[in-house]
Amino acid sequence: MQLSARELAQFLNGTVEGDPEVKVGRPSRIEEGGAGTISFLGNPKYEEYAYSTTASILLVGPGFQARKPVAATLIRVDDVYGAVARLLERFGNNNHEPAVISKQAFIHESASLGEDVAVGPFAVIQAGAMIGKGCRIKAQAFIGKSVKIGENVTIYPGVRILDNCEIGNNCIIHANVVIGSDGFGFAPQEDGAYRKIAHVGRVVIEDNVEIGANTAIDRATMGATRIGKGVKLDNLIQIGHNVEIGENTVIAAQSGIAGSTKIGRSCRIGGQVGFVGHIEVADGTQIQAQSGVAAPIDQPNHAFFGSPAIDYNNYLRSYAVFKQLPELYRKINQLERQVNQQQDAPDKDSSS
Amino acid sequence: MQLSARELAQFLNGTVEGDPEVKVGRPSRIEEGGAGTISFLGNPKYEEYAYSTTASILLVGPGFQARKPVAATLIRVDDVYGAVARLLERFGNNNHEPAVISKQAFIHESASLGEDVAVGPFAVIQAGAMIGKGCRIKAQAFIGKSVKIGENVTIYPGVRILDNCEIGNNCIIHANVVIGSDGFGFAPQEDGAYRKIAHVGRVVIEDNVEIGANTAIDRATMGATRIGKGVKLDNLIQIGHNVEIGENTVIAAQSGIAGSTKIGRSCRIGGQVGFVGHIEVADGTQIQAQSGVAAPIDQPNHAFFGSPAIDYNNYLRSYAVFKQLPELYRKINQLERQVNQQQDAPDKDSSS
Amino acid sequence: MQLSARELAQFLNGTVEGDPEVKVGRPSRIEEGGAGTISFLGNPKYEEYAYSTTASILLVGPGFQARKPVAATLIRVDDVYGAVARLLERFGNNNHEPAVISKQAFIHESASLGEDVAVGPFAVIQAGAMIGKGCRIKAQAFIGKSVKIGENVTIYPGVRILDNCEIGNNCIIHANVVIGSDGFGFAPQEDGAYRKIAHVGRVVIEDNVEIGANTAIDRATMGATRIGKGVKLDNLIQIGHNVEIGENTVIAAQSGIAGSTKIGRSCRIGGQVGFVGHIEVADGTQIQAQSGVAAPIDQPNHAFFGSPAIDYNNYLRSYAVFKQLPELYRKINQLERQVNQQQDAPDKDSSS
Repeated sequence: MQLSARELAQFLNGTVEGDPEVKVGRPSRIEEGGAGTISFLGNPKYEEYAYSTTASILLVGPGFQARKPVAATLIRVDDVYGAVARLLERFGNNNHEPAVISKQAFIHESASLGEDVAVGPFAVIQAGAMIGKGCRIKAQAFIGKSVKIGENVTIYPGVRILDNCEIGNNCIIHANVVIGSDGFGFAPQEDGAYRKIAHVGRVVIEDNVEIGANTAIDRATMGATRIGKGVKLDNLIQIGHNVEIGENTVIAAQSGIAGSTKIGRSCRIGGQVGFVGHIEVADGTQIQAQSGVAAPIDQPNHAFFGSPAIDYNNYLRSYAVFKQLPELYRKINQLERQVNQQQDAPDKDSSS
Repeated sequence: MQLSARELAQFLNGTVEGDPEVKVGRPSRIEEGGAGTISFLGNPKYEEYAYSTTASILLVGPGFQARKPVAATLIRVDDVYGAVARLLERFGNNNHEPAVISKQAFIHESASLGEDVAVGPFAVIQAGAMIGKGCRIKAQAFIGKSVKIGENVTIYPGVRILDNCEIGNNCIIHANVVIGSDGFGFAPQEDGAYRKIAHVGRVVIEDNVEIGANTAIDRATMGATRIGKGVKLDNLIQIGHNVEIGENTVIAAQSGIAGSTKIGRSCRIGGQVGFVGHIEVADGTQIQAQSGVAAPIDQPNHAFFGSPAIDYNNYLRSYAVFKQLPELYRKINQLERQVNQQQDAPDKDSSS
Repeated sequence: MQLSARELAQFLNGTVEGDPEVKVGRPSRIEEGGAGTISFLGNPKYEEYAYSTTASILLVGPGFQARKPVAATLIRVDDVYGAVARLLERFGNNNHEPAVISKQAFIHESASLGEDVAVGPFAVIQAGAMIGKGCRIKAQAFIGKSVKIGENVTIYPGVRILDNCEIGNNCIIHANVVIGSDGFGFAPQEDGAYRKIAHVGRVVIEDNVEIGANTAIDRATMGATRIGKGVKLDNLIQIGHNVEIGENTVIAAQSGIAGSTKIGRSCRIGGQVGFVGHIEVADGTQIQAQSGVAAPIDQPNHAFFGSPAIDYNNYLRSYAVFKQLPELYRKINQLERQVNQQQDAPDKDSSS
């Protein structure tokens, strides 16, 4: 597929600056480029590449002002990342898998599959499971008893969705994710051993959710662990039992949320963050990577950092002083000596 | 199944306060409740719900004193969580899976299976493996060569138990856990490359252990990585080669223990904690979430926090000052100015 | 297999101190030992065991000077760990699996397999995949469309290598690893929802790489996520889209690298470390466990600690003062009182 700058600008609602007839056949990264490719400048850190890239077309945002000559034809758009998303879909290998049901899959006779569903080899679909139309259940995936899956859901190889859990429409569940494992709940016994608390709840994943590889989401003790509409979870995340995550919240890799905590809507959580259990976190909260949230957050749209997490800017200010602590320590000791000297001295002075 | 407060109090060794004949059919969370359900008040954070819940019966502990009217019939027990554990087992879907061995499983002819064993579709049981009676080997699980598994063990889909490892009785291994991967051991070479150190040891899991989804436990270089009786590991935990964990220790999600470290009995380890290798940690140690344990812990029953971890209360005290560091910084600089001024001043004063 | 100290010293380029005819049949850990075994003293922490071990032969390095009598025959070598690596290979169960292709595997007719390849039960090899000679594709592994795998690669059960990814020669990929999941890339929309950015790139793993259990490596948005020759990744690691890791870098468990970051050669990264995206890290960098690298590192061969990470020694010095902050706080307040008193005092003094 070859598309001209003019055609692409029209498709992306952008304007051409340069040769509108130059044609490209695939996207490229700005630092790699190549004739016949279209690249993009999103992060300003990469601006220098705009002047050296060999890409034929360069997507830029409204704020880009060239400080040097740019060889590529520019397409200027309001929202670079949105345009890239559309571009990659256009050029991406849209080889929508055919709706083949492998003879080497295990599908229980009481399971129901919608139209246009694919099931890969060695996938297992247990009794009473319901799979909506357009779903792609890839090889070696596991769909437990009475699981309900909406329409147009992609389940990658090795995903385990355990009994009674529910997945909405248009979700993407990446490889080796576990949904519906028992939560970590035990009653301590007098002899020091722990007695398992049965988990009779389930997990509910709403529409348009994407879940990264090797993430684990525990089922509720009772009721449901709930992942809201449009939530995006990265890889290797831990979601404890009875956690609830509000709509359009995004969480980066390796973060963990302990049991019964409720995260608000439109939060942005960095990687390797931890939340204690049984707290509520307000809508629009931002948590810096590696922070530990140990207390409820009531006020919406605030940023936090540290372990335990405090106000983001306050943490940075305290950390700036932390870095100077050895020097500060010496200064305090010197001050102490001076003050003690002065305290001894005045009498002599006044008596002199 | 409908049970009256009177019947349940008898079952749970509790006492009824209110109508002993009210009947319930299922457990509920206190904030959801519902007529015909039994709920519980464990964490005092949730006390307000005791006054608003619509559950028909409410389990409470010996310390609960109602400060407002409670509509539900109370069942008072000594140990709320223990009672909940028993209650959930009673109401839980105890559909013990039938002992069916799938024709679509691969079971090597030299493997031995006890009575009443289930093996799911596409499970693999390799040569010489021994599975004790009452085990449930679920779909797509992998049991390597010469692996020994005790009685009444549940192995969830996608679990990999690699060659020669050993699992005790009554263990539960959640989905996609890996037991017996090679440890991270390499000998540096003169050219900067690393030479793999073969791992000829194994993993031994003792009785009554539960292991959370996606956790990885490496085999020993020589000898055994050992998880003691009654240990409970949460999801996404890393256990290095030759680690040993004492009886009844519990470890929350995403923690990691580096090679050859020995953790004592009855320790409680928070989430996202890290331990360096080659140290011993005393019995009853408590580690706060996100801490990094960098040195041996000799004294039992102490609590730690921070990275590197120090005494729990000392960390909190230091962190309280950390939060005030910018203010402290200003104060020190002001003191310095004052002191220097005074040092210059006295002569003038005394000369005045 | 029984080997004498004399034979082993010859094999390991070492020298015998003691009885050269004593024979051993297997390796042991120094604290376990046992007659007829060979053990080793690598980490000086374990020196005491050299005097109590019941192993028949003990491997030691050039620096070991016995301070007490040692019962074992010593074999002294230049590089203990290198010798152990060779020893374990010699004694290890070198039962190289036979090149059997299971009839219960799914191998697409367009896939190509080299000579001497094993494929386990319920493994899936998709269309166009190419597997080099000597590979071991174990049970339940997944090899996607057009994946290329070099020679002598071991793929453990449950590994998912998704479409178009490429693996070099002599790699070892441990159980349940995911290679080629989509990166975490979304374009925010005006209504607060996120639009997925398609990932049309792939993952390239070079020769001699080892990847630990449950690790996840995302494919590039465009181009390739690249793991350099000889890199060793531990368990449960997260590698974001378009990350590049230089040759012979080693990364301990549960660390994560955000998108587009480039790590240099021969770096040593501790466990639970995090790197922000879009930075470069110089060759030979060392990062202490649990650190968070938030900025580029330009100067090679330096060590860092903290979150955000700073110079390793500076962090330790600052942390040493951090531990004394409560005391320092009291001292400052006392100084303040003294200084303010002195400031009030002099006039009185001088006026007296």
